[in-house]
Order: sequence, then structure tokens, then C-alpha cells
Amino acid sequence: MRRIAAVLFPGFELLDLYGPLEMFGMQREDFAITLVAESAGPVASGAGPQSLAELAFEDCSGFDIVLVPGGPGTRREIDNQAMLDFLLKANAEAEIMASVCTGAVLLARSGLLDGHRATTNKAAWAWASSSSEAVSWQAKARWVQDGPYWTSSGVAAGIDMTLALIAALHGDKRAEDIATYAEYDWHRDADWDPFAAVHGLV
Amino acid sequence: MRRIAAVLFPGFELLDLYGPLEMFGMQREDFAITLVAESAGPVASGAGPQSLAELAFEDCSGFDIVLVPGGPGTRREIDNQAMLDFLLKANAEAEIMASVCTGAVLLARSGLLDGHRATTNKAAWAWASSSSEAVSWQAKARWVQDGPYWTSSGVAAGIDMTLALIAALHGDKRAEDIATYAEYDWHRDADWDPFAAVHGLV
Repeated sequence: MRRIAAVLFPGFELLDLYGPLEMFGMQREDFAITLVAESAGPVASGAGPQSLAELAFEDCSGFDIVLVPGGPGTRREIDNQAMLDFLLKANAEAEIMASVCTGAVLLARSGLLDGHRATTNKAAWAWASSSSEAVSWQAKARWVQDGPYWTSSGVAAGIDMTLALIAALHGDKRAEDIATYAEYDWHRDADWDPFAAVHGLV
Repeated sequence: MRRIAAVLFPGFELLDLYGPLEMFGMQREDFAITLVAESAGPVASGAGPQSLAELAFEDCSGFDIVLVPGGPGTRREIDNQAMLDFLLKANAEAEIMASVCTGAVLLARSGLLDGHRATTNKAAWAWASSSSEAVSWQAKARWVQDGPYWTSSGVAAGIDMTLALIAALHGDKRAEDIATYAEYDWHRDADWDPFAAVHGLV
């Protein structure tokens, strides 16, 4: 059983968070999900709806997987030392640190991606990739795995990355079964990325 | 500006709800989202994470679009008169009643789909389609529109349906822009449904 900390902050992007959690959430025998935030309680998404953080950062320990969504709120969180400190603390214990969309800028700013390959949102590429010059940013990639760091491109790409992550942990068959159950057309090639061209990045 | 009531109940499916809300939520000038439930406050999804209902059913009025997700909790909600009464009350004012996955069984049991074409989750087809014999259930369909009733197949199909709904209201260009921003590979053909065959329904 792996414990997942799914990180909330004001202005998080709904699908960045809940696409991956849907895929993990179908296997409650293997993954236990906890929503965490700087303070426990309601946290408003960028679109408005609020989710409930169960644990505050200071009460978090022993998580195996940390999932960091993006969203408009990342522009504030990039300078939130409590967020960056939490990511560093969680990284020391975690097997996997994963981000979706502009969630990668928080991992990058914390220094965790220094010297690593990573990707991020294509629509906000210039800003997101400027968050750290020490990261080897990959413009054309649905997702990138480099050691314990899994970073995906924008929003829906997080679903494909999560299925690949589940395949790495539990085998292809498991990921295929989940995609089929979710009636999701899984893009299982990490190099499939038509959106890089749409945004003029390749 | 259209007001959307997104319906929560214990055991709702995360992506059924948040896939569509991501697509609507990128246009805060055109769509205002409110999470609603039998009682205001925290509601646990089938996967565990809790979302916060802002309004109780009894305090809801004047919504233009009602979105009903599916999930394991539908097996209890199908006999919850407060839920069925809310759907009937909301339908009297709404322009569009939409469901994802087994959310269709709640619309069906309320009688709203009587004499209408509709679809639902393919993995739970036998149970879901038994919720009402007065509905013309379509086994092979990513989604079905019949008048004000939009019903989608399982989980991820709700995203495709929502983009089609946005295209119907605001034009194809708008829906395409949203799909591109979300880096989502939009299936825009309502007849595209490989999952009906996977589950032996066609």
C-alpha cells in the first residue's frame, strides 16, 4: 500500500489534481489518497469549487508519492516558502514526486529538479520554464520521468503520466484495465505531444 | 452567464465531476460553477477525497445547467427521494440536464429520461440500464443528446460530452481552444465508442 499526498493550494487546477487521483483512486487496496495543504480545511480551485485538505503540511509524514498540480495559483506558490519547504521535506521520504502542468515550477523552484529532465504546461511554457535554469526542460513530451521525478505536460497529460506510473509500479495490464474502466483513450507514448507544435515550441 | 449546479453525493466519481468542471471552469465569464448536495458541507468521493458543497438542495434555484456525476454512490442515491426530487425541481428551471457515467441512472429513475435516448457507463451497463425501461438506452455512444438531456458514457466520456456541449452553446472554435489549452485529445464524434465492444455490448 502506497500513501499519496495530493497537494492543494488556492487556485489549483481541477483536472491536474483529479485526473491522476481518479486513476489512483480505482485501486484503494494499493493507493491511499490524502489531500494536504499549508493548512487543513477548504481550498478553492482556480475554477471556484472547493476541496477539503485533510492534513496540514506540518502534520504530513511518511508519504510514498507526492502529486503537485498546477493552475493559476502556482504564480503565488512559487514564492511560498512553506510550500517549497514541504516539497523538500516530503521528497526526503517519498519514492515518487510527480507534478502536472505548472506544478513542475514548484518542484523546480524547490531545487528538486536541478540537473534533471522535466516538462510542464505548453501554453505557459516561457514562464514555467523560466522558474529554474538548472532544469533540462523538454518541450516535446507528454510526460518525463527522470529518477523519482515524474513531470507531465498540461492538464490532461497528467492522466497519461499517472497511467504510465501505475504501469511501472503494477504492470501494463493494471494500467490498461484502469484506462478501460475509465473509458479513457490512454496515450501511452511519452513522446506523443501534438501540443508542443500548437504552441510553437518545436 | 450560465449558472451550473454540480451535484455531489457520498461516493461520487472524481473524474465524472471534475473532467466536465475543468472544461466549464476555463470560462469563468460564461459559466459560474456551484457544488450542491443534499446538505451543504464536505462530501466524500468514492476514492476518498472530500469536496465541499456550497449549497443544499433546498437552497438551490435558478440553475441553467445541472451536472450529475456517477460513481459507486449512485447505488444508494437511486433510492434517495431527496435527490430525485431535487433533479425534478432543477429540471423545471434548467436549460440543460447533463449526466456522466452512472449519473444517468439518477436522471432515469427520476423519470426525466422517459421516452428519451440516453447512454451510461459501459462497465456497469446491465445494472445502469435496468434503472428504467422507459428510456431508449444507446449502448454504442460516447454521449447522447436528446433535447435538454445530455448523457455520457463512463468517466472520461464526460469530458468529450462537455466539449460538445460548449461547442453547441459557444461554437466549435471555443471548444477547440479549451481542449488545446487543456492538452486534451478531444473525441468530437459522439459515435466514437470503442468501449461498447470491449464490454461486449455491440
